[in-house]
Amino acid sequence: MAVKNWFTVSTLGKRTVSSPLKLGNHPGDTTYDYLNDSDKVLYDITLKGFNLYRAKHVEPPCFEMAGPREHIYFDPTKIRVAIVTCGGLCPGLNNVIRAIVMESYHRYGAKSIYGIRYGYHGFLPQEGYEPIMLTPDLVRDIHLEGGSILGSSRGGSDQVEIVNALERLNINILFTIGGDGTQRGAHAIYQEAQKRKLKLSVVGIPKTIDNDIVYVDRSFGFETAFSIAVQAIEAASTEAQGAKNGIGIVKLMGRQSGYIAANAALAVNLVNFVLIPEVKFDLSGENGLLEHLEKRLRKRHHAVIVVAEGVGQEWFVADRRNVRTDASGNKKLADIGIFLKDMISRHFKDIGLPAEIKYIDPSYIIRSAPTVPNDAIFCAQLGQNAVHAGMAGKTDVLIGRCNGIFTHIPLEAIINKKNFISPESTLWWNVLETTGQPMNMTNPAGTKKKPK
Amino acid sequence: MAVKNWFTVSTLGKRTVSSPLKLGNHPGDTTYDYLNDSDKVLYDITLKGFNLYRAKHVEPPCFEMAGPREHIYFDPTKIRVAIVTCGGLCPGLNNVIRAIVMESYHRYGAKSIYGIRYGYHGFLPQEGYEPIMLTPDLVRDIHLEGGSILGSSRGGSDQVEIVNALERLNINILFTIGGDGTQRGAHAIYQEAQKRKLKLSVVGIPKTIDNDIVYVDRSFGFETAFSIAVQAIEAASTEAQGAKNGIGIVKLMGRQSGYIAANAALAVNLVNFVLIPEVKFDLSGENGLLEHLEKRLRKRHHAVIVVAEGVGQEWFVADRRNVRTDASGNKKLADIGIFLKDMISRHFKDIGLPAEIKYIDPSYIIRSAPTVPNDAIFCAQLGQNAVHAGMAGKTDVLIGRCNGIFTHIPLEAIINKKNFISPESTLWWNVLETTGQPMNMTNPAGTKKKPK
Amino acid sequence: MAVKNWFTVSTLGKRTVSSPLKLGNHPGDTTYDYLNDSDKVLYDITLKGFNLYRAKHVEPPCFEMAGPREHIYFDPTKIRVAIVTCGGLCPGLNNVIRAIVMESYHRYGAKSIYGIRYGYHGFLPQEGYEPIMLTPDLVRDIHLEGGSILGSSRGGSDQVEIVNALERLNINILFTIGGDGTQRGAHAIYQEAQKRKLKLSVVGIPKTIDNDIVYVDRSFGFETAFSIAVQAIEAASTEAQGAKNGIGIVKLMGRQSGYIAANAALAVNLVNFVLIPEVKFDLSGENGLLEHLEKRLRKRHHAVIVVAEGVGQEWFVADRRNVRTDASGNKKLADIGIFLKDMISRHFKDIGLPAEIKYIDPSYIIRSAPTVPNDAIFCAQLGQNAVHAGMAGKTDVLIGRCNGIFTHIPLEAIINKKNFISPESTLWWNVLETTGQPMNMTNPAGTKKKPK
Amino acid sequence: MAVKNWFTVSTLGKRTVSSPLKLGNHPGDTTYDYLNDSDKVLYDITLKGFNLYRAKHVEPPCFEMAGPREHIYFDPTKIRVAIVTCGGLCPGLNNVIRAIVMESYHRYGAKSIYGIRYGYHGFLPQEGYEPIMLTPDLVRDIHLEGGSILGSSRGGSDQVEIVNALERLNINILFTIGGDGTQRGAHAIYQEAQKRKLKLSVVGIPKTIDNDIVYVDRSFGFETAFSIAVQAIEAASTEAQGAKNGIGIVKLMGRQSGYIAANAALAVNLVNFVLIPEVKFDLSGENGLLEHLEKRLRKRHHAVIVVAEGVGQEWFVADRRNVRTDASGNKKLADIGIFLKDMISRHFKDIGLPAEIKYIDPSYIIRSAPTVPNDAIFCAQLGQNAVHAGMAGKTDVLIGRCNGIFTHIPLEAIINKKNFISPESTLWWNVLETTGQPMNMTNPAGTKKKPK
Repeated sequence: MAVKNWFTVSTLGKRTVSSPLKLGNHPGDTTYDYLNDSDKVLYDITLKGFNLYRAKHVEPPCFEMAGPREHIYFDPTKIRVAIVTCGGLCPGLNNVIRAIVMESYHRYGAKSIYGIRYGYHGFLPQEGYEPIMLTPDLVRDIHLEGGSILGSSRGGSDQVEIVNALERLNINILFTIGGDGTQRGAHAIYQEAQKRKLKLSVVGIPKTIDNDIVYVDRSFGFETAFSIAVQAIEAASTEAQGAKNGIGIVKLMGRQSGYIAANAALAVNLVNFVLIPEVKFDLSGENGLLEHLEKRLRKRHHAVIVVAEGVGQEWFVADRRNVRTDASGNKKLADIGIFLKDMISRHFKDIGLPAEIKYIDPSYIIRSAPTVPNDAIFCAQLGQNAVHAGMAGKTDVLIGRCNGIFTHIPLEAIINKKNFISPESTLWWNVLETTGQPMNMTNPAGTKKKPK
Repeated sequence: MAVKNWFTVSTLGKRTVSSPLKLGNHPGDTTYDYLNDSDKVLYDITLKGFNLYRAKHVEPPCFEMAGPREHIYFDPTKIRVAIVTCGGLCPGLNNVIRAIVMESYHRYGAKSIYGIRYGYHGFLPQEGYEPIMLTPDLVRDIHLEGGSILGSSRGGSDQVEIVNALERLNINILFTIGGDGTQRGAHAIYQEAQKRKLKLSVVGIPKTIDNDIVYVDRSFGFETAFSIAVQAIEAASTEAQGAKNGIGIVKLMGRQSGYIAANAALAVNLVNFVLIPEVKFDLSGENGLLEHLEKRLRKRHHAVIVVAEGVGQEWFVADRRNVRTDASGNKKLADIGIFLKDMISRHFKDIGLPAEIKYIDPSYIIRSAPTVPNDAIFCAQLGQNAVHAGMAGKTDVLIGRCNGIFTHIPLEAIINKKNFISPESTLWWNVLETTGQPMNMTNPAGTKKKPK
Repeated sequence: MAVKNWFTVSTLGKRTVSSPLKLGNHPGDTTYDYLNDSDKVLYDITLKGFNLYRAKHVEPPCFEMAGPREHIYFDPTKIRVAIVTCGGLCPGLNNVIRAIVMESYHRYGAKSIYGIRYGYHGFLPQEGYEPIMLTPDLVRDIHLEGGSILGSSRGGSDQVEIVNALERLNINILFTIGGDGTQRGAHAIYQEAQKRKLKLSVVGIPKTIDNDIVYVDRSFGFETAFSIAVQAIEAASTEAQGAKNGIGIVKLMGRQSGYIAANAALAVNLVNFVLIPEVKFDLSGENGLLEHLEKRLRKRHHAVIVVAEGVGQEWFVADRRNVRTDASGNKKLADIGIFLKDMISRHFKDIGLPAEIKYIDPSYIIRSAPTVPNDAIFCAQLGQNAVHAGMAGKTDVLIGRCNGIFTHIPLEAIINKKNFISPESTLWWNVLETTGQPMNMTNPAGTKKKPK
Repeated sequence: MAVKNWFTVSTLGKRTVSSPLKLGNHPGDTTYDYLNDSDKVLYDITLKGFNLYRAKHVEPPCFEMAGPREHIYFDPTKIRVAIVTCGGLCPGLNNVIRAIVMESYHRYGAKSIYGIRYGYHGFLPQEGYEPIMLTPDLVRDIHLEGGSILGSSRGGSDQVEIVNALERLNINILFTIGGDGTQRGAHAIYQEAQKRKLKLSVVGIPKTIDNDIVYVDRSFGFETAFSIAVQAIEAASTEAQGAKNGIGIVKLMGRQSGYIAANAALAVNLVNFVLIPEVKFDLSGENGLLEHLEKRLRKRHHAVIVVAEGVGQEWFVADRRNVRTDASGNKKLADIGIFLKDMISRHFKDIGLPAEIKYIDPSYIIRSAPTVPNDAIFCAQLGQNAVHAGMAGKTDVLIGRCNGIFTHIPLEAIINKKNFISPESTLWWNVLETTGQPMNMTNPAGTKKKPK
């Protein structure tokens, strides 16, 4: 059954090696407990859910808890490990790399840890990149900087070539840090390795600055992202207030989900309109954005708009023959920020209310930031649990935190899905309360809905 | 039964007023759902817990979910609301005040919102402080600053005098933002009001920078606290590395729980020893801290120690006749930071290994900081949910987030309890992994355990 | 003689009022000295200059020192003061406003201080803006925020209308905070007031984030600007290193002078090419930028470029019929950042070396930032000295710091001039040393010089 | 004559090597000028000074300008260079080290650059520290961190042993980065080297976070110091305002000069009393600090005090037999912060006005901070000019910026002197204006002056 499969984790085989982690092995009597595969956390944690599954007499949907196992699959002293970071930059990449290296090296005793350069491309012989040998000395301070010391890039996901390279390098555990495309690639690598009967564990750490992974509480780098975004909003607000009829527009990341926009707006309380892909709106018309913006301007003389990059993509379709994609397979987005700036500018010129528009796109400043402390801890825990999973022979699996607990999630459960902000959620309700923007900025049926 | 009582929330009576919140009332068909009192979240969210309670055929322990109710108790247009902040400063006080004012004023239409000056003292006529009338204009930007615009102080908790004052002011909802002593006071106020048959709702927002509240995921201000503490640790590390046999000591908040120390150490990866009240250790002796510190110094020539203020208090008892308490009823702590500095200094002088000790106490810098963005959102949500609770006539209740969901927690369930770091927890295990410090720094029985 | 005129400061007339500043009037015998108009600072402070003017037997060029005068022109208790901020935002506007208000109010006892809204437009009746009454309470904390509480805008410089408004408001001192256009306007206001025989003192505080004022050490907001720019460069560097053949481009302010670009690059040591208007270069050709960039990429696989907005404007002239100007009379610049990004992208596509280009334009984030502490002090001193000057009846004058000393500079000495980075200066030499970029990136005569 | 000697710089001998710096040697015709020893900057830059020296017919006091010379003393390819950092930490140490290494290596081609560990101690064989070979790769990013990668310490200044070590290592240029004691040591090393007829250039970069060097505009690290101090003052202000009769006390560095205290107070505008060693005051008595503090508290209910560490040292003398000094020869200071806190606490208890005192000592956080951008540039320029000086054979010399220009200052001109804030200076006047504190807080003769 579909649901069941989502929660069943693959393993390479019997775990016959004793963990080198000295849990409980110390002079006093304090005991650190290993986790068993039967330790699970409920997916639905409401009383209603409890009653539902109790009535049904079935086991409720659960995630296997991540953490150290007493018996592991690989002999850690002989193991060879590889780490690859793919896709665009995201805060925390270096923290996760560091945690995997430190945990593998110091706790499990693995000394052969390879860093693959520039995403999956680094596996391809024609690219000519040598892996980097990662040591504690090399990674000691990398978490203090943003970016990825390995480099990162999109595409290059050729599972046959990659598994060839993994065989050449004799890799036992591959850690794939990347987004949806990357994890699709990881699944394909797993399948190819299975076909070749390789003892390869593939453990993913899902990376999406947009926070759009299903099931998990949040993705790494996301808190840092909206924390840094706050600074751009403050700048936009200052600029808007400093000008006659000033309008500050900040474009934030969010291809299909508006989490960064929503959270940044909540954190700073300076935003009047948050526009996210999940909540459609009309630009013109009597209940459109421009109308509401005009009202705001006439009353308060300035306004701040935060727009997620994925907003309004349907408006651009008519202008183009074909949908373009980038090397990760993501749809290439038309620039809503520039578009909005132009539409608003034209509108206020037309109605004779000259507005000064200040447009800020802080994306690269956000992506490349070092983590805020809370995110730093989260990244370290993801990396440590990824190592526990890999050593235990878990494979085709992601590490995610669900309901506050680190878990193993089968790759297939997550790829090709997205997490969205529900317009009925408390989060969106909070945004509406904070901004004071109308719940609905679409025109009744029959009225004009598209930008002219 | 005790457990059951913990989870049963008191209410003032029938809710006969329609909520002014326009959930679902808009041109489209999007519906925001009100919450019912039967909406609850499980306390134990593991599969084991599920099976246990299923087998027992009893309802598992649950917390009532916080949030807007369709029918409320008070007529919001006539209501009078008071807010009081008590105890020491903590990041987020202004954020919570702001959220309560904004939610009460803009969403429910309550216009009479009073801020009580300097904690419970502000209720006492002999102190001579007038309440401040709080308006959206006044509180608009207060969340950008640390501290409390109301002022805060310990003590003053005289429920008879306070309820007299509340009657004089005709207050219907009292929001008490403060720690354990404050919430004990809130409970006494509730009891006094019950005795007088007053229609008074008492809603607490628990404040403890130490993060030591039971049941809840974390307390407000805590993330900010350990985030700012990171800067002091970085300074200590730089100082330690810049000197011959340099030792940096940072004392952090944590009277009985070491959460700030543990999380700050995890976030920054520069600490060699984390000392918390929950994990006892010996100073001298062959397995004591000084011995391990000496080994570290001989090998690496510098060391960083983070110590929670509540550590080693048992060492001071012998020196004093009586246990002193501050105005909140908290035991006055002897200064472990200074003590440790002196003991270490003396030890290394004695053994002829001159060490340079740099002692940093960043407590006031941490307490007075404005919130980091993630904490800002958390504070706002606490304040909003407190208003929902108060308007619905919930009383003798706290707002807390449990397993990621905002809930109502009866005051009695929480007061006089503390949350501690378990030495068996993943958190402490992570600290040991990050610092490399021994699991156990006590000497075997029969050997010297106390400082000389 | 021209030179002499530059240094002669206009005054309204005899100074017959005793300064209310209680310099020296206290129990001890410490004396604070008033300054005399004969206190001057040399413009050329080298020994060569000394010998030159000694030999010539003429007084060397000097600036009159700013500061409190014992006898002043206006009766401060009756005086009416106005402040106007013009042009784009710049860090420090609020600091200067605050200092003028505090000094006028607390030190001189002036109680009627008006803030004009949105630049010179705020004087025009048809715009309908009322001046704000500025008090110490209102301005107490404004220096902690960026922007201008008065609002700022370009244009509106109609001296007849403005002097009409000043007469209506009975203003005695007008403080004009703004750039070149603003100070040209201030000079015209002065002339108009002279014509009408008004007792109006016009005191300018020159504002140019570009630091391009002649004679003075630096302009306010400039240090903050390049300090904040550092963050964008760090982001660009992280992005460049995180991608295969990553190129980070940061566009910074600098219409005609590259001071922000040069200083930001020096402060952070991460930049490979600094492009400023003062140093011409070719894009293509064997000694052009693209060639040098390619070499860098082949060797190091990443590069960071900082470009001042005024660079390469001559390349755009051919495409346009007419030179556009903004409301301040500044030439509207074509966007060199976008242009450079496109040219570089095209070049590396053409030669088959796919480069990933990350383009950051942090201008609004920089302009709207609150001041760094050193700049805050500088702004306060400018404001205080402006008040001293106005009270003393100085007019048609600017406040500037020359050779470390605050001085009065006649408006005419500065307007219509610009300060440039000399390619022979130590500053530029330091940039070349830090970046390692070639001194000269132009092709020998006869080879291709323009972008294709 | 004394004055003349201060300005005459020693050199090792004839400069016969052509500088490898390619100034002017490029395709275009831009020329970078070398500096000559006759390039000098005036010490007194006022018109009065000009007229004085013109009348006297003598050369005015001047400093030789620092910068690259066309002919240098050492063959840079064969040279061996050493760098030592002494005394307590100060922001910018790593920046100066980096600049010396980069300039020596990349511009002059010197490849043998040694870093001495832990100050002068690193020269002493009995300490057993090996010098570090410094390379561009090693120092590339050190300026992003505070502290000194070499380590630093006080004392160890034995010129015979040090010159022995320099001979063993074959060092040609020694860069001494340190305070007064360090530069006294450097002068002794120079004298010892002269005695042995060694071709050793000794070039000092004066380090004093207190900014108390005579003649120079400011010392490196000073701007960073008062910029970071601002954060502690903000915390103290928030704490003071958050408590009933809250008093925030911040102790800042400043053994004999109050520059950090004064500048931090000016930058942030939140301080009510600035106490510096240069301006004596009484604690008690009718015009004493306690009296003025009480007035402030009764009126405004909170106060912020900034005190420099060197304040009130005369009060402690009576309690001690002998004056202690630290390893640098600095007088060991009694802790004025703790003393003040206790005196104020006792006073307000005595008069029945219970005050809450929050005492912050941010010294280590300030000392260990990385530089702010403007300071970073300054440090780099000091380091570069130090290398130019050493290569040119200048010796017994310091690098300092005077009247905005980098100069050579003979060591003897500066050691054993201190720069103080004059109570008649504009700086102190500005502090009085900003704080509103009385000019004089001493009691008339005959009244009580000392603390009880």
